[in-house]
Amino acid sequence: MNCRAIFYTLGCVLNVEAICMLLPLICTFIYQDNMFLTFLACILICASIGIALIIKKPKSKTIYAKEGLLIVALSWITISIFGALPFVFSGFIPNFIDAFFETVSGFTTTGASILADVEALPKSLIFWRSFTHWIGGMGVLVFLVALLPLSGGSNMYLIRAESPGPSVSKLVPKVRSTAMILYGVYILLSVIEVILLLFGKLSLFEALTLTFGTAGTGGFGILNSSIADYSPYIQTVIGIFMMIFGIDFSVYYLLLLRKFSDAFRSEEVKAYLGIVATSTLLITINIFSIFGSIKESLRHAFFQVASVITTTGYATFDFEIWPSFSKTILVMLMFVGACAGSTGGGIKVSRILIYLKCIVKEIKVSLHPNTIYKIKMNNRTIEHEVIRSTNVFMTAYLMLFAISLLIISLDNFDFTTNFTATLATMNNIGPGLNKVGPTQNFSIYSNLSKVMLSINMLVGRLEIFPMLVLISPHTWKK
Amino acid sequence: MNCRAIFYTLGCVLNVEAICMLLPLICTFIYQDNMFLTFLACILICASIGIALIIKKPKSKTIYAKEGLLIVALSWITISIFGALPFVFSGFIPNFIDAFFETVSGFTTTGASILADVEALPKSLIFWRSFTHWIGGMGVLVFLVALLPLSGGSNMYLIRAESPGPSVSKLVPKVRSTAMILYGVYILLSVIEVILLLFGKLSLFEALTLTFGTAGTGGFGILNSSIADYSPYIQTVIGIFMMIFGIDFSVYYLLLLRKFSDAFRSEEVKAYLGIVATSTLLITINIFSIFGSIKESLRHAFFQVASVITTTGYATFDFEIWPSFSKTILVMLMFVGACAGSTGGGIKVSRILIYLKCIVKEIKVSLHPNTIYKIKMNNRTIEHEVIRSTNVFMTAYLMLFAISLLIISLDNFDFTTNFTATLATMNNIGPGLNKVGPTQNFSIYSNLSKVMLSINMLVGRLEIFPMLVLISPHTWKK
Repeated sequence: MNCRAIFYTLGCVLNVEAICMLLPLICTFIYQDNMFLTFLACILICASIGIALIIKKPKSKTIYAKEGLLIVALSWITISIFGALPFVFSGFIPNFIDAFFETVSGFTTTGASILADVEALPKSLIFWRSFTHWIGGMGVLVFLVALLPLSGGSNMYLIRAESPGPSVSKLVPKVRSTAMILYGVYILLSVIEVILLLFGKLSLFEALTLTFGTAGTGGFGILNSSIADYSPYIQTVIGIFMMIFGIDFSVYYLLLLRKFSDAFRSEEVKAYLGIVATSTLLITINIFSIFGSIKESLRHAFFQVASVITTTGYATFDFEIWPSFSKTILVMLMFVGACAGSTGGGIKVSRILIYLKCIVKEIKVSLHPNTIYKIKMNNRTIEHEVIRSTNVFMTAYLMLFAISLLIISLDNFDFTTNFTATLATMNNIGPGLNKVGPTQNFSIYSNLSKVMLSINMLVGRLEIFPMLVLISPHTWKK
Repeated sequence: MNCRAIFYTLGCVLNVEAICMLLPLICTFIYQDNMFLTFLACILICASIGIALIIKKPKSKTIYAKEGLLIVALSWITISIFGALPFVFSGFIPNFIDAFFETVSGFTTTGASILADVEALPKSLIFWRSFTHWIGGMGVLVFLVALLPLSGGSNMYLIRAESPGPSVSKLVPKVRSTAMILYGVYILLSVIEVILLLFGKLSLFEALTLTFGTAGTGGFGILNSSIADYSPYIQTVIGIFMMIFGIDFSVYYLLLLRKFSDAFRSEEVKAYLGIVATSTLLITINIFSIFGSIKESLRHAFFQVASVITTTGYATFDFEIWPSFSKTILVMLMFVGACAGSTGGGIKVSRILIYLKCIVKEIKVSLHPNTIYKIKMNNRTIEHEVIRSTNVFMTAYLMLFAISLLIISLDNFDFTTNFTATLATMNNIGPGLNKVGPTQNFSIYSNLSKVMLSINMLVGRLEIFPMLVLISPHTWKK
């Protein structure tokens, strides 16, 4: 195993994190919130360890699948540990496990919080908290790959392990260019959202932090009421942009290249939009009696559907009081998640499509046992390996779900709370139901449960296998 | 499609049902409970339709996979419709949908009830209700295959579609002999349990009905308190026999043949016993504070674990008041279920083992992408087709689970109730949590939900695909 390359990459990641912390450092100057020394200390810690790790360059920069998976798992744990320091040093979240939970929740774009009063935080800390969403959304390693030519060609292992979805296709032959295109689209869309939010009379601070939460499909708000107190215009802009960031980014690249027919051929995007439309319609009818107006019901239904399917987790309304039918739809959308290749979490629409196609195939095979059927997506046959790993993804997901549910049930909360807490963390959503509903937070859980839920978030963001590889004995034996 | 063979088989099934109803008819003589005319009418209806269907023999008795799956689905719907008639005619369950629910629950060995007061029923009706468990446990078509030489060799399609588990192996080369062996073991074990219960000073009526509920892993009790009011001896006998009926019957056949090493090689049985031991231990520790004695805690923990993993659903204690951790374990065991080839329901231990082996393989493949790994069970390589259909089973299961959850949520009960109601019906368990907990019943649900939950029970007992084939357009198009 090429251990030096792993440490070298971790060093690069820490240096990137130090650079990212310069932004909240600037905030401390603007808002004079006494956080200057905190962020300076954190930057110095990250940078000194980071530089120490990269001084000695690895003999070989070539990495294979194993190193790729380990780098991804360790990088995300590392940035979360060091990203938690500002919360601990400032004293606003003195317990390290709480701070770690909050930071993992940020980087993994979950948006689950242990804070009851977000508004009490200094502005620069709120900025850092939201900024972690934006960093985590597209992925810190994709960023690294875009920046530095780490190794000749084997970078694809990193992107594949970090990017969501059953299969990552290179947009262009060079991996580095693919990473740059992805970040380019990400920045472009973020800038457009910021501008539109500024039109809604938000301050630049508010526009930036809310955009970070939307772009990463994270969901950390800057008000205790999440998005409920903003104007319908702001809510609509955020609602639409959540949807936009939930779509496979390669579609935008195809649009930029004016390959419209290719872009519109995506079965996944069609299914995603279809699911959103159907769910919004059903919920609108179901909650009509609460709001008494179709327009209001539609607005809240659409926002909540968009927020949940993209696994953002912003709320305009306490959906805890909605009827069971609507809540059940929302719980199902939490499982479904957004498109592969977007910043959203969950199982991903493309996997759900593959599952459905497998079921149809199985029915056909059981009717005609001697015929051979192929499964196609976007008119292309899906490889056996993709189907296999998509199927294993589901069972691994369920096993880890069960383990988490069991461990957090030691805290003796009710089944709905524990079930949706696991769901909300593993699918990187944020709020669940009951005691972890949209107006509640995760501080009720014990430290053990918080660690478990933090692991869930990492498992969900990295789509299980990097984390399983990290703890598997097969990885570490000679 | 060989429609005549399908109708002919349905006719045979109805005749078998008419014969089965002779037993409760005998009960009406013994207990003089005014049910004679009710059962006579039901027998005449079943027999006359049954005979009408078999008068015209099919030109060809050969059936293929499609006919096999359709026969299984339609047979189970047919016996449930006609089996509900005694409840309706007697006026004890006047609503046909309620009676259908109760009968499906019986034949599928679920044990979920809409009755608040079982003891109010006449004895012959209680006998019929419990007897449906025994009939459904081993399967009415396995019985048919054992009795009559329906077609040359293609019978295996029927057994395969009706029997639980990822793959059915013929015990002996002839299908008919396999079916006879299975029923032989089933009858032998049932007789032993009846005798042991008679030793516990139960009446023959009690011993028979409780054995029907245990042998089929059904769970209909004859007292409103389920098993709670019986002596510890009776409870222990029932607990052990639930476990016995949850083991693959081919193991008993191997034991009878004195092939001990083959019998004890079964990975599934080892895992099944391991899961029961671990769960019992964890729950015993967790509920110790409720009972204050290790012996009592252990007894209740073992009974409940055995009852839930075998999907029987008998209760000695209202586990609704147990701590969350214990309840979560029970909910997980509901998913796991018993061994393949037993009378138990659920996903089956062998499937869980295949899933785990697939996950380990996936980790190995992701570490060494160019190596080929085979998945083995009991030292034999599992065929690709079995792994594929086992994986599809899980996703189809989850999709149907989601549909059921959505439809019954229209009744606006809480999430835990709806979730466990779907779980308890689809895995043929019986009780769930909250409003469908062990001291409650399913009468709270609307007719629509009861139909959905009845479909769940059939889907669970027939392991999804016969029911999917029945409603699939692919089946019916030319």
